Amino acid sequence: MPVSDDLDGLKRRLAVARGEMPADLVIKNARLVNVLSGEIHDADVAVADGVFVGFAAGEAADTIDAAGRYLCPGFIDGHIHIESTLLSPPVFARAVAPHGTCAVVTDPHEIANVLGLPGIEYMLACSHDLPVTCYFMMPSCVPATDMATSGARLGAMDVAAMLARHPDRILGLAEVMNFPGVVAGDDMMLRKLIAARGRVIDGHAPGLTGRALDAYVTAGPGSDHECTELDEAREKLRRGLHVMIRQGSTEKNLESLIGLVTADNAGQFSLVSDDKDPTDLSREGHLNALVRQAVAQGLPPLRAVAMASINPARYFGLRRRGAVAPGYRADAVLVEDLESFAIAEVVLAGRRLGAWEFADRSCLTPPRAMRVGGEMTEARLAVPAASSRLRVIGIVPGQIVTEALILEPSVRDGLAVADPARDLAKLAVIERHKGTGNLGLGFVRGLGLKAGAIAGSVAHDAHNIIVAGMNDADMALAARTLMVSGGGFAVVRDGQVLAQVRLAVAGLMSDAPLEVVLSGLAALGAAYRELAGLPPEAEAHPFMAMSFLSLEVIPSLKLTDKGLVDVTTFGPVSLFA
Amino acid sequence: MPVSDDLDGLKRRLAVARGEMPADLVIKNARLVNVLSGEIHDADVAVADGVFVGFAAGEAADTIDAAGRYLCPGFIDGHIHIESTLLSPPVFARAVAPHGTCAVVTDPHEIANVLGLPGIEYMLACSHDLPVTCYFMMPSCVPATDMATSGARLGAMDVAAMLARHPDRILGLAEVMNFPGVVAGDDMMLRKLIAARGRVIDGHAPGLTGRALDAYVTAGPGSDHECTELDEAREKLRRGLHVMIRQGSTEKNLESLIGLVTADNAGQFSLVSDDKDPTDLSREGHLNALVRQAVAQGLPPLRAVAMASINPARYFGLRRRGAVAPGYRADAVLVEDLESFAIAEVVLAGRRLGAWEFADRSCLTPPRAMRVGGEMTEARLAVPAASSRLRVIGIVPGQIVTEALILEPSVRDGLAVADPARDLAKLAVIERHKGTGNLGLGFVRGLGLKAGAIAGSVAHDAHNIIVAGMNDADMALAARTLMVSGGGFAVVRDGQVLAQVRLAVAGLMSDAPLEVVLSGLAALGAAYRELAGLPPEAEAHPFMAMSFLSLEVIPSLKLTDKGLVDVTTFGPVSLFA
Repeated sequence: MPVSDDLDGLKRRLAVARGEMPADLVIKNARLVNVLSGEIHDADVAVADGVFVGFAAGEAADTIDAAGRYLCPGFIDGHIHIESTLLSPPVFARAVAPHGTCAVVTDPHEIANVLGLPGIEYMLACSHDLPVTCYFMMPSCVPATDMATSGARLGAMDVAAMLARHPDRILGLAEVMNFPGVVAGDDMMLRKLIAARGRVIDGHAPGLTGRALDAYVTAGPGSDHECTELDEAREKLRRGLHVMIRQGSTEKNLESLIGLVTADNAGQFSLVSDDKDPTDLSREGHLNALVRQAVAQGLPPLRAVAMASINPARYFGLRRRGAVAPGYRADAVLVEDLESFAIAEVVLAGRRLGAWEFADRSCLTPPRAMRVGGEMTEARLAVPAASSRLRVIGIVPGQIVTEALILEPSVRDGLAVADPARDLAKLAVIERHKGTGNLGLGFVRGLGLKAGAIAGSVAHDAHNIIVAGMNDADMALAARTLMVSGGGFAVVRDGQVLAQVRLAVAGLMSDAPLEVVLSGLAALGAAYRELAGLPPEAEAHPFMAMSFLSLEVIPSLKLTDKGLVDVTTFGPVSLFA
Repeated sequence: MPVSDDLDGLKRRLAVARGEMPADLVIKNARLVNVLSGEIHDADVAVADGVFVGFAAGEAADTIDAAGRYLCPGFIDGHIHIESTLLSPPVFARAVAPHGTCAVVTDPHEIANVLGLPGIEYMLACSHDLPVTCYFMMPSCVPATDMATSGARLGAMDVAAMLARHPDRILGLAEVMNFPGVVAGDDMMLRKLIAARGRVIDGHAPGLTGRALDAYVTAGPGSDHECTELDEAREKLRRGLHVMIRQGSTEKNLESLIGLVTADNAGQFSLVSDDKDPTDLSREGHLNALVRQAVAQGLPPLRAVAMASINPARYFGLRRRGAVAPGYRADAVLVEDLESFAIAEVVLAGRRLGAWEFADRSCLTPPRAMRVGGEMTEARLAVPAASSRLRVIGIVPGQIVTEALILEPSVRDGLAVADPARDLAKLAVIERHKGTGNLGLGFVRGLGLKAGAIAGSVAHDAHNIIVAGMNDADMALAARTLMVSGGGFAVVRDGQVLAQVRLAVAGLMSDAPLEVVLSGLAALGAAYRELAGLPPEAEAHPFMAMSFLSLEVIPSLKLTDKGLVDVTTFGPVSLFA
């Protein structure tokens, strides 16, 4: 229900405020976490037309007796990639709303790399008017490099056009990851920054310091969510960057950074999740979990709540959101206490969560993006053993950087092959956007596979099909399974598909309800554990680990559809040294 | 010098940031008052193209050795009426710059009431590209009421058109003074608010509380600068209003309100001056004086500086202004200490103040606004004594509210006349915008005149000619003096003009340099003191006191060109009861 900003609507809201008409909703006897006045005080709160209209109780169509519970503003996630949740936007919204999330700012970087502008338009269209507002940032780095084939290429004109076309929904330029390009004054990057002039520009500059950081900040980015060290964050804070403390499913920086937040600088911080997998989301919660963790680390609750509400709202220039005050959108979370932040009630745009109808599925026909050149046969995966020095990608547990190893190949019939005894899997990246027939082949150590193959169409940033396996037949079948389904994940052994999750939206997101996605992922995990010989209770994230093996901007050795990439020299290298 | 936002300019700034090109200016060995990181730390600061580009010293065309002095961001006044300084915008800018002011947000309410849109356009045009940036707000209440004849009438369409026409210079809707209209849901007021939707809307709601305040805030205003009591300010703060603590030449609220500012809410406050007379400005300073006073009242310096820099910048959405950080406009004030805030150097857009050339006078032909209907003769000022119960405006010293008195008239030849023995002056308000010939007549007690007459064309809000005197001949001469000069102030005795200040810009502002205005005002004061029989050292502000006698929205009894107004009933009343 959008706020009706016409005269009659405003008159009605004023009449409710004056007490001359009943409110739509009154929340009485609350302890209000007032992020504007910086205090927690008793309050009754009235709502009309989805907007708070004052602090007086009275007649109302619906009344919530807070009975002394704490009323917080709805939570706002200033940086999240919805694609990482594997959920389509409507399903995502339905998944986060019970955790008190009322708005997110999302960077559709993944789908943009697959489908370009139509992908972004899809995300916009199917998140239009959800009870949880999805604001967008315009991806700045599509493609990440030319060392992989991605589905699209977006330039400065695209940035300018999209910002002009969706002024209220696209807030600015998304995380500017090509920080070396910005610092060096690369034309294309600067043109994108200039195209976003006057709008919000998010930064992404892990470890950048000193004069290079000066140059980066001078160029325009106003935030950073890549700080991992306190000193790094302090240096960025002093230069005026809004520091988004990230606590996602893989990257967790809250404990390291929270100590930097003081009374005098708290307004410069937000809590964000960046990448959150659906199992985590469902189990731990969303921003409510981050607020809880921040408080557990010693941050005063008022400040923690502000970092998940008014602070991101202000940073992004979201007018009249992020606080409980007259004229603000009536998003609020009633929590039992300021320690557990256990949620008693969620109000979105003035209505209880239960009164909202959420679509179960995507609202639109999910866009397919699966165009592989040629048949995917076993024969194409063969690797003749050309020498005794094989380059191998070494997985570093829990990290997305890899090692560049040189090992002796395991050879059978003149071919370099996977070898479970050495935890050595064959790896293939199959171009899926343009039908080029590109196929990159390599080897990886540390995935833990003992048999069969696994495949995924989530493979940063170009999101080609990535397959790892112990034999070529299973690898080819795993890849073909995704080619047929339109993308997703698959686990294959001995010519049989043990489990698969279909990601019908661009091979990145499911169009199914949350429960279906969760049970699919559980089955997938079970199948993988079978292949890896792990007990049922073992934690393992092979698809996530695999999805970063093709990310050619993170050191050291990666595989794209064009072959092996040495990230330290930013160039291709041969499979055999 | 505007920031060149083209590619080459940005490249140059990045090259300076990287240390590969010399900076335009380096300020080294400073103690930086960092309002973003909430700390004071040592820093060198480099500038290129009028923008800060980093925290590294190096080669530079100009270097300032701060020698441990404190570097504050340039000061920003979030609410000031330039007209009240009697200075044209360029002269105003030159007057405030030495006090460290780098930007003001001004409401051209006075000139709009005289000249309408052309008056606003004049202010915009002649403040364009000054080293001290003049941002504007679109006046919301022109005219204030229909009980006086003002020079213009601005509606919601005018608001919408001007906001669209000057999106970068007019930030939103100026102080919405007609708060009863807003609360009651008056169509015209709501249409103006809707026209400014999405932009900044300033409030003005003295004493408003409870449900009425709820309604007012719901309608849109985001700030208030009319708080006089701590409890009043707290109530507004809780409702999310940005509280502008006003410390002007007449209204001084700093001492009463400063205690409300805490570490957790400081971001919601700014320091503003509202109305500042040129003598004050020249003697005491501008925001530097407010910061000094706030610190003297116990506010931590970091917080006081933020309230005069980053806080107003954020409230008004001024991107990359209000702090010393890379990419921010290079406005800074070097002060000796954080107690006196004595200014050692001012840098505006990257250049020392001394390097700027300021125009001495207005840049454009000052617009005249002086159209009086008929001759201004002594005869027209005669008041036949109709009864023994004369309504008299009673001045309350130091306040703009007046008393509604009923006194026996002093009668001569059947006419009610002024009477120095009773401190009773005749008062006339002469319509000067449309040549209607309107002439309001009345009496005032408490001006202190003993002979002659004084006249002024500054008379809130309609700014007709207001004349007070002890005889009709001098009153008529005083009025004619302004009619000839185009407006200003005059002191007349025995048929002689003792002193006058010409306000060539719409009868509100001078087009002369500051020194000329100051000496003119000094002469005017001396002449008045002669008329009042006061010693030369006596403080007196008769023209200011007189300028509020026609302000028909402030109780109790006022005089407009249409006659006496009883403000409590909001209607006209006769001169004789």
